Amino acid sequence: MHVLITGAAGMLGRKIVAQIAAGGIGGQAVTRLGLADVVPAPVPAGFAGTVDALTGNLADAGVAAAWLAGKPDVILHLAAVVSAEAESDFDKGYAVNLDGTRALFDGIRALGYHPRVVMASSIAVFGAPFPEKIGDEFFNAPLTSYGTQKAMADLLLSDYTRKGIFDGVALRLPTLIVRPGKPNKAASGFFSSILREPLVGQEALLPVGDDVRHWFASPRRAAGFFAHAAAMDTARIGPRRALNMPGLSATIGEMIEALRRVAGSDAVACIRRVDDPVTEGIVAGWARDFDPVRARALGFVADASLDEIIRIHIEDDLGGSL
Amino acid sequence: MHVLITGAAGMLGRKIVAQIAAGGIGGQAVTRLGLADVVPAPVPAGFAGTVDALTGNLADAGVAAAWLAGKPDVILHLAAVVSAEAESDFDKGYAVNLDGTRALFDGIRALGYHPRVVMASSIAVFGAPFPEKIGDEFFNAPLTSYGTQKAMADLLLSDYTRKGIFDGVALRLPTLIVRPGKPNKAASGFFSSILREPLVGQEALLPVGDDVRHWFASPRRAAGFFAHAAAMDTARIGPRRALNMPGLSATIGEMIEALRRVAGSDAVACIRRVDDPVTEGIVAGWARDFDPVRARALGFVADASLDEIIRIHIEDDLGGSL
Repeated sequence: MHVLITGAAGMLGRKIVAQIAAGGIGGQAVTRLGLADVVPAPVPAGFAGTVDALTGNLADAGVAAAWLAGKPDVILHLAAVVSAEAESDFDKGYAVNLDGTRALFDGIRALGYHPRVVMASSIAVFGAPFPEKIGDEFFNAPLTSYGTQKAMADLLLSDYTRKGIFDGVALRLPTLIVRPGKPNKAASGFFSSILREPLVGQEALLPVGDDVRHWFASPRRAAGFFAHAAAMDTARIGPRRALNMPGLSATIGEMIEALRRVAGSDAVACIRRVDDPVTEGIVAGWARDFDPVRARALGFVADASLDEIIRIHIEDDLGGSL
Repeated sequence: MHVLITGAAGMLGRKIVAQIAAGGIGGQAVTRLGLADVVPAPVPAGFAGTVDALTGNLADAGVAAAWLAGKPDVILHLAAVVSAEAESDFDKGYAVNLDGTRALFDGIRALGYHPRVVMASSIAVFGAPFPEKIGDEFFNAPLTSYGTQKAMADLLLSDYTRKGIFDGVALRLPTLIVRPGKPNKAASGFFSSILREPLVGQEALLPVGDDVRHWFASPRRAAGFFAHAAAMDTARIGPRRALNMPGLSATIGEMIEALRRVAGSDAVACIRRVDDPVTEGIVAGWARDFDPVRARALGFVADASLDEIIRIHIEDDLGGSL
């Protein structure tokens, strides 16, 4: 099987590449990997198949065609300008997240073949106020340009699928925790930070209260969603191709107690509470819980617990032990 | 007040132009009218202000800038490729309905001023299956390219408004009856035809059963929605700028009885039932009823009755009497 991954150098892209290079997709081995991103993506260790190193900006003319030239059977489209940058650079966000996605879709159309396309979407397509649990038929009223672009791309993917141009699925991912690496400036960064830093004895800042609730998945689980969507029977989905992925709804207080169970009270002591009304205000507008009935019926399964999410981070990113 | 109308030569465009040329907007007289379309739009009789005749295709480079050059205070954006054509000509639909709309929005942004923009959207942003009454928070799962493009344009309008580029409102219009003129090949054409043709003693074909229910507004009422939206206090809307317009939910059987009340049984006898499973199938996927709570709270009012809708057609399009 020949798989193209756009955004292959990103955190989730690398997890997916590692997972499918080792485990294949739907029982089939991956024999050729197109690793596409603005910077060179790491080649997975021990992968015996062909690797196409593809660099470029999807928003630039000719890039989509070059990435698609080998007619990959499966395209996992993750390349995107992230939320904060799409908000600060209006043109760049639309150029990459909307026009780049459309260029990819039109590139497939120009080749006249019918691949599976699995696209990363986001719960940012939803904007407050919303119900306590967001259902599969709740509307998209994003409050960011990133969320707008993802909602538009979701619509585009369903229409291109309906017209028979490709066989698409958009996965609206929960917030991923625990993200490996350094703290970043994303407003959501503390959700990973308050678990990641304490696990290695470092201080983490917590800008919100214990009762703040949000919607989470582990990076390993999210990578698995892409492998599942790449192999699933799409006839069961119908025309509504954007799916709210299952996640775990949890409060900050629950995250802290999970950290205590997995890593002890010394770890919890590394969390320092700070006053940050700006972040508090932003987070107040985020989704707290979902009822992803359709995705569950299609075989997507959430992480079992926060404890599991923390252990996945230890296994996948910290070498297996503290 | 200086008003630009795109799609000014279309049926609804002409109704709006006539209405605001005579009655102004929000108590202010219209002193300058930009009438923009692919073909020259008729100038309203007796209008004493300045008229800019603007022709071109919004999807072509430079057209948006030319139409916007006079910095109109209010832009009523109706120009669109209609549903059937957007479905048969995929590229043209996206070029005009998505790219053309975006070109208009970016043209405003380039000028650096902050006009009111009222855009025609459609209940085609919704796709079956849906609840018996579609609420304001029901999601967009369009089943046509036209509906997809309108849903994308709605999202774009809300985001451009949120970013302070302009002050936008998108009006999701019910199916308009009675459309003046000749029968056309639109699948929805019979909704107007079964009232319009019998009123002048001509045969009309009815391809669906009496129990088929759909969502309607008169052209005069829809034109009024644009004038209302152009003048309203948008601070009351909040960030969710696409509004489901009020309409009248009615069955074919109710339409026939209204026709009988207004024009008699001889008119009803002009309706000939035909077997058309294709049209029946298409119509089965259309919205039947809405609960447009937000739009009603913002002062948009539906037609009072089917009888009123028929009388409006007689007054506005048949010279006032049968």
